[in-house]
Amino acid sequence: MKTATGTGKARWARDTLAPALAKSPERAVSFTTISGRPIERLYAAEDVADVDPARDIGVAGAYPYTRGIHASGYRGKRWTMRQFAGYGTPAETNGRYKALLAAGGTGLSVAFDLPTLMGRDPDDPVSLGEVGKCGVSVATVEDMATLFDGIDLGAITTSMTINAPAAILFAMYLVVAERQGVAWDRLSGTLQNDILKEFIAQKEYIYPPRPSMRLITDLFAFCRDEVPRWNTISVSGYHIREAGATAAQELAFTLRDGIEYVEWGIKAGLDVDTFVPRMSFFFNAHSDFFEEIAKYRAARVLWAQAMRERCGARDERSWKLRFHTQTAGVSLTAQQPYNNVVRTALQALSAVLGGTNSLHTNSLDEALALPTEEAATLALRTQQILACESGLTNDVDPFGGSYFVEALTRDMIDEARRYFARIDEMGGMVAAIEQGFPQREIAESAYRFQQAVERREKILVGVNEFVDAGHQPVPTLYIDEQAAQAQQARLDTVRASRDAKRVSKTLDALKAAAAGTDNLLPLVLDAVRADATVGEMCQALRDVWGEYEEQPMI
Amino acid sequence: MKTATGTGKARWARDTLAPALAKSPERAVSFTTISGRPIERLYAAEDVADVDPARDIGVAGAYPYTRGIHASGYRGKRWTMRQFAGYGTPAETNGRYKALLAAGGTGLSVAFDLPTLMGRDPDDPVSLGEVGKCGVSVATVEDMATLFDGIDLGAITTSMTINAPAAILFAMYLVVAERQGVAWDRLSGTLQNDILKEFIAQKEYIYPPRPSMRLITDLFAFCRDEVPRWNTISVSGYHIREAGATAAQELAFTLRDGIEYVEWGIKAGLDVDTFVPRMSFFFNAHSDFFEEIAKYRAARVLWAQAMRERCGARDERSWKLRFHTQTAGVSLTAQQPYNNVVRTALQALSAVLGGTNSLHTNSLDEALALPTEEAATLALRTQQILACESGLTNDVDPFGGSYFVEALTRDMIDEARRYFARIDEMGGMVAAIEQGFPQREIAESAYRFQQAVERREKILVGVNEFVDAGHQPVPTLYIDEQAAQAQQARLDTVRASRDAKRVSKTLDALKAAAAGTDNLLPLVLDAVRADATVGEMCQALRDVWGEYEEQPMI
Repeated sequence: MKTATGTGKARWARDTLAPALAKSPERAVSFTTISGRPIERLYAAEDVADVDPARDIGVAGAYPYTRGIHASGYRGKRWTMRQFAGYGTPAETNGRYKALLAAGGTGLSVAFDLPTLMGRDPDDPVSLGEVGKCGVSVATVEDMATLFDGIDLGAITTSMTINAPAAILFAMYLVVAERQGVAWDRLSGTLQNDILKEFIAQKEYIYPPRPSMRLITDLFAFCRDEVPRWNTISVSGYHIREAGATAAQELAFTLRDGIEYVEWGIKAGLDVDTFVPRMSFFFNAHSDFFEEIAKYRAARVLWAQAMRERCGARDERSWKLRFHTQTAGVSLTAQQPYNNVVRTALQALSAVLGGTNSLHTNSLDEALALPTEEAATLALRTQQILACESGLTNDVDPFGGSYFVEALTRDMIDEARRYFARIDEMGGMVAAIEQGFPQREIAESAYRFQQAVERREKILVGVNEFVDAGHQPVPTLYIDEQAAQAQQARLDTVRASRDAKRVSKTLDALKAAAAGTDNLLPLVLDAVRADATVGEMCQALRDVWGEYEEQPMI
Repeated sequence: MKTATGTGKARWARDTLAPALAKSPERAVSFTTISGRPIERLYAAEDVADVDPARDIGVAGAYPYTRGIHASGYRGKRWTMRQFAGYGTPAETNGRYKALLAAGGTGLSVAFDLPTLMGRDPDDPVSLGEVGKCGVSVATVEDMATLFDGIDLGAITTSMTINAPAAILFAMYLVVAERQGVAWDRLSGTLQNDILKEFIAQKEYIYPPRPSMRLITDLFAFCRDEVPRWNTISVSGYHIREAGATAAQELAFTLRDGIEYVEWGIKAGLDVDTFVPRMSFFFNAHSDFFEEIAKYRAARVLWAQAMRERCGARDERSWKLRFHTQTAGVSLTAQQPYNNVVRTALQALSAVLGGTNSLHTNSLDEALALPTEEAATLALRTQQILACESGLTNDVDPFGGSYFVEALTRDMIDEARRYFARIDEMGGMVAAIEQGFPQREIAESAYRFQQAVERREKILVGVNEFVDAGHQPVPTLYIDEQAAQAQQARLDTVRASRDAKRVSKTLDALKAAAAGTDNLLPLVLDAVRADATVGEMCQALRDVWGEYEEQPMI
């Protein structure tokens, strides 16, 4: 701009705004984001007087990456359209994957069922009623092979949402690649493998925090040497946000989790620039449009600065925050389900304008059940319309320079830094979690939001306003008990045909290593090759490390 | 911002972009908007070096209104959710209006059927097969009374999409208000009444341009004195865009049409500041997100400057461009109809971010038929989600200061000004239309876009890419011939019960005035009160002025 003298905001407030408000007052006393952040009615040059365009906004593809990590944005490569999917048996889910790829999906993303996530086999009594219900059941390497049957692991990228048993499912994927004749250094994809957010929000942990962290740093080291193109972790704000965090809390806790992993990796003896470039992030795209865009921009700046200044990374690839986004499941409503198509489209747009590298758009029926194929296709079409029809990929960071979004980005960065300082004072994120700090912060935010909805200060269309008398039924996907029976039968077959002695031997070796300090991945791979099950391998580690129990919140 | 020295774009191009492109080239050779406008990959401070924040961007509620006409934006008043609707008989449409108001709609918008739009009665042979099909049939003041039965005209705002017979339908509305006991100075709403865009694009004209313009300036004068809160015209780019114009052509031709009406009003002896404040505009919200936002910002600047500098308006209210927006009907596809929910949501968002004062969102089934009540409700819910859940009403003009959007806004303004200059050289818009200029420009743009789609340079999801083998049926609204029969029967009843001599007398008086220079509105009102029909009144004017026939394009 020509001058930095501003747009005359002070004079405006006196000469234009005040008479207008005197004539016609505003609708409400306060205007806040869905996270409760107050927003000014007008942002002008004066509000970004402290922002130095060269230092703080910069250019795309260069430090501090406010405007994105790629110089040519989506002109070079569009975001990956990665639809999270999984249900029933591996064969059923394999069919859905082939349909998504045929419809133009550009990456796969595995949703595992609850027993798999908790490291339990389909025939474990605690798995009853849950096998194949909210994701696909995978108990053995044979299941993993069926899941990717006819899909070339060297040609696609795969994301796997698995945490406590991440190393085990990943080892199964590696063995399937081996069988397909695909070298590990050609494999590309992402393992969620983010246990800290399980303690904070999602609660699908098995072992206590410290041995859990060791599993992760073992995986960092193993992939550095053996699977160099694999994203070893997807540090996830998604579940933190779904649990009720504000946008700034999602930002702060996720980034601080990322720093924690890096610092534990360095403590475990890894050179920072050998493993950080393979770390990735996973954010929520919630409903407040601008706050989300500012959040993604702020995240890139915070990570770049933390890696360079705090963790001493010298490789540019360590500074660049790459992230997947999923639209906010918690924002979807069972009432008036087609409204969810609108919500998801707007949330997806914010992720794209914020420069996401990969995106999952929720299906309209996800508040009711697992998505039907029709609903999943419409969710993918939503991304395709954004990518092809809306002109969004022509240039990078369209909000660059915007008074409002630059000011909001600064605010988010500042708020996250204040959280970093508090967590550092507590001794880091593992310590903060052990003290229940992020858990309490999130619970308070969730409570405040719930109160705002109940008081109708925040409106949810079809829920607390614009309510319909009737309800609109949509077809839903029902997973019956046949999937569980089929999985138990498959498991029986595997158990009957494998070399039981070899299984015991590999599991004993795994236990011994868990009690020591050797990298666990080679031992997990041995057990997988011996057809040990997810439940058996997780139990071996439980025997050594015990199970985590959350302290009640006071 | 702190400095105006820029973000180092030149150095970036050399040090960051060039190596990145050498390593990984871009996907396509050129990146353009849906209108074919080339877009740069990165906009930075250097691209808005000529923009003076105080002069060109300014503040909300003050000249030149780049950032909006209201100081507090949507904090004061949200946009009006005005869903265009009409089908079958007046009684059927009355039922739909009551449903829309009950669902939270905040204004009405009447869609008339083709016979009404063309000034023909339901029993006219040329009306065959069209009565009540694409809108509601209104032939007499009794029909108008039924259309608004049980709806207080003093409490709602009504928009009427009617052009060649605008004065006649408006007179009917005034008589219904009279009957309801609502004084005319309490009436609020909008008459489309924009005949120039009919000659340019929509082709629903009756009389030649010059007597058509006289009808409009008569209405300006009448409303100034009698219906002071009524918007006398809605200068419409919507149909120009639907016919295939680019965004810049929509902007230029619509604004130049507006200037033409003002200049004819001044020539007819009206003081500019007595009628311009009641002029409004109507734009399309098409698919290219940023180009649309820049278009709305540019429109406000162009109008403010034209009114102040060119037309000598001194009243701020004359400078403020107020506009309704409708999402782009032409962008909707019969294939994969639920994709239309996504398109409409994104288009509506661009209208809101551009500061629209009123909005119609299309229903998902509009490429197939008139909307069902379910589809119309979902379209309204789309607006409610934007208004209530997305945080969009907290602040005004979130793109203010954005390097990209400010640069694009400047480009659009410059392109429109070049069109203004060419049209001025031709002797104004009526002369340009008589020479076929805007018609040819639009036809060329439409042809270029069609070629781009055929060559797959522009992708339409479900049409030329991501095509499904099957098709997804949606329920559609079918209007049978019963509506036509009912309307003919109503008309017979009116004709049988009215005072035929009084009808003849009022129609003769109307003809005499049409041949002279008196304001026609009082004479139309007399004929309406005598129960003359739309067809009869239009025929009286046809007898005097003749019918327009378009010259074939060479």
